[in-house]
Amino acid sequence: MSTADLKQSISYTPIGVIRSIHVSPEQTPIQPVYSCGCRGTAEIFEQYCEGLSDLDGFSHIMLIYHFHRAGPAQMMVRPFLQDKLRGLFSTRAPIRPNPIGLSIVRLLFREGPVLHLDCLDVLDGTPLLDIKPYVSRFDCIRETRCGWQDEVDENEAQRLGMRGYLPGSAPKKGRS
Amino acid sequence: MSTADLKQSISYTPIGVIRSIHVSPEQTPIQPVYSCGCRGTAEIFEQYCEGLSDLDGFSHIMLIYHFHRAGPAQMMVRPFLQDKLRGLFSTRAPIRPNPIGLSIVRLLFREGPVLHLDCLDVLDGTPLLDIKPYVSRFDCIRETRCGWQDEVDENEAQRLGMRGYLPGSAPKKGRS
Repeated sequence: MSTADLKQSISYTPIGVIRSIHVSPEQTPIQPVYSCGCRGTAEIFEQYCEGLSDLDGFSHIMLIYHFHRAGPAQMMVRPFLQDKLRGLFSTRAPIRPNPIGLSIVRLLFREGPVLHLDCLDVLDGTPLLDIKPYVSRFDCIRETRCGWQDEVDENEAQRLGMRGYLPGSAPKKGRS
Repeated sequence: MSTADLKQSISYTPIGVIRSIHVSPEQTPIQPVYSCGCRGTAEIFEQYCEGLSDLDGFSHIMLIYHFHRAGPAQMMVRPFLQDKLRGLFSTRAPIRPNPIGLSIVRLLFREGPVLHLDCLDVLDGTPLLDIKPYVSRFDCIRETRCGWQDEVDENEAQRLGMRGYLPGSAPKKGRS
């Protein structure tokens, strides 16, 4: 692929849709680890259903999706977990040049084209682009440095990360 | 977003390009864990460079990219690590409806718009779509079931996963 081709856009088409209790970006937990008890589904379009075979052997899956309600990209952002300006790519903020979201969620069970999920931090109606299995031998890296995230206390992260969501209660509905 | 909108395509534009020693798909390791010693770079286009601030505090980053040489999607595939047909979404095979790749690589250091990387399992010239920091508290899940992957012996996975790559040697160049 030449440098010229790298300026061309790449088109994807949703393979399904994510259904969740989260209807307001302001009340949606920022990560699956702060969304325990948030159940929902990924509904896969019929033509891709065969590709879900064998997935239910995995306890966790990666959802790759389009942040369909994200605003314009900003290169410096104030992350939810810390009140300092940080480079966008050192954060998970949705306002990215390509607003691609990634969530590692718990797969409860599969029912035909529907995946029943827990720990869901995704807005209702989000277009799903891909699903990958979470494979510990690839994805669980135990020795890491995590930059500014290492400065954030775990209890504080938990409090801020849940945002408006209270376990066991549906969030308030509202425009946003 | 209505159901009708979910059928519309979504366009992304590369934020940069991945440079690696891998020029042949057949000799490219299948995952970063089988690519230790494979160094390379991610070169970010100028307008996104500010967004790289603070990234060098992280030892590992996620590259999200376009499998630009993937063939047409297949719903059942024979994964590299096991000689059985498996549902596509339970594998990391590149022949996906939306050929989006994800690699968790080691960030060695940053030099302006260039990220120097290790454990790179990505083909040279691959268009980069997004970068996210690897955050242990979000991404390292210790208690998992990993379906058919749990049937694959670790030594066998290491042998098969490296494919044509031999640590310390550049792979053979060739058309593919």
